Amino acid sequence: MQWDETFHVPVAQRAAGVVILNGQGDILLVREKGDGKQRKAGLWHIPSGTVEEGENPQDTALREAYEETGLRVRLLKFLGAYLGRFPDGDLILRHVWLAEPEPGQSIAPILTDEIAEARYVTQTEFDALYAAGQIRMYHTRLCYEDARREVAAQAARRDHRRAQES
Amino acid sequence: MQWDETFHVPVAQRAAGVVILNGQGDILLVREKGDGKQRKAGLWHIPSGTVEEGENPQDTALREAYEETGLRVRLLKFLGAYLGRFPDGDLILRHVWLAEPEPGQSIAPILTDEIAEARYVTQTEFDALYAAGQIRMYHTRLCYEDARREVAAQAARRDHRRAQES
Repeated sequence: MQWDETFHVPVAQRAAGVVILNGQGDILLVREKGDGKQRKAGLWHIPSGTVEEGENPQDTALREAYEETGLRVRLLKFLGAYLGRFPDGDLILRHVWLAEPEPGQSIAPILTDEIAEARYVTQTEFDALYAAGQIRMYHTRLCYEDARREVAAQAARRDHRRAQES
Repeated sequence: MQWDETFHVPVAQRAAGVVILNGQGDILLVREKGDGKQRKAGLWHIPSGTVEEGENPQDTALREAYEETGLRVRLLKFLGAYLGRFPDGDLILRHVWLAEPEPGQSIAPILTDEIAEARYVTQTEFDALYAAGQIRMYHTRLCYEDARREVAAQAARRDHRRAQES
């Protein structure tokens, strides 16, 4: 065997979520409620949450999107798995997909005890929120960047195909 | 911000691959060629390989499946991201999807310089190869186990739906 069990690194916690962009490249974010004692209180993040025992991360992403925005979504493409380390040393891996809402729905969070609001944020507004420390994670920014890169790459491939076909 | 850049853990290398099961739960594996000096020479693994710069892991999985087995496949579901640490401390993250071949193809590896053979291996044979140190990674076993669990969960959900509908 080339890489046995000693090569394996256990991950203490898994999370999954979605990046949903509208046609203008704005990103759908949710703002956490909280009593101000929690470190995430009031901060903006993508719809996402913990992968439960025995749950597939893909199913977590769909479930969290629905609970936090009220939208049934379709996963378009895997964006990345973002690794983080808590202060106690435990690792967390967050799986993120590019997704789009099924047509004809309105944004209306189900978990109203946890989510104060859910809405599209422009890139300019995102950058301002980030600079002000109002975005929940560095990873929130990374997956937004990766999503814009993926959408741009898809558009470039589509243009290339059309140019070849014409 | 709750989790800033100091929370982020960089991953030095990314890989992606596929678990393909047939109707009997046998797994499609590839056996590496090699001159015997390489530690992976002669060992069995799922079709998989390195995510190239700017490549999406989903696209890597499709590309590697084709190069190592000659099969065009469809990704059915994300199975997991398996984290490993090389002896030098660098982290590698391997993304694995459950996949199925598009109909009407034969197994015929393209990278014949690297791949000695590709074929379905029964679970009994897999266990024997594993015990004999002929499976390339502990992660190869983990993702096979996760794939069988996912397929069993899908079958249970299907049976449950049918029972409700009847």
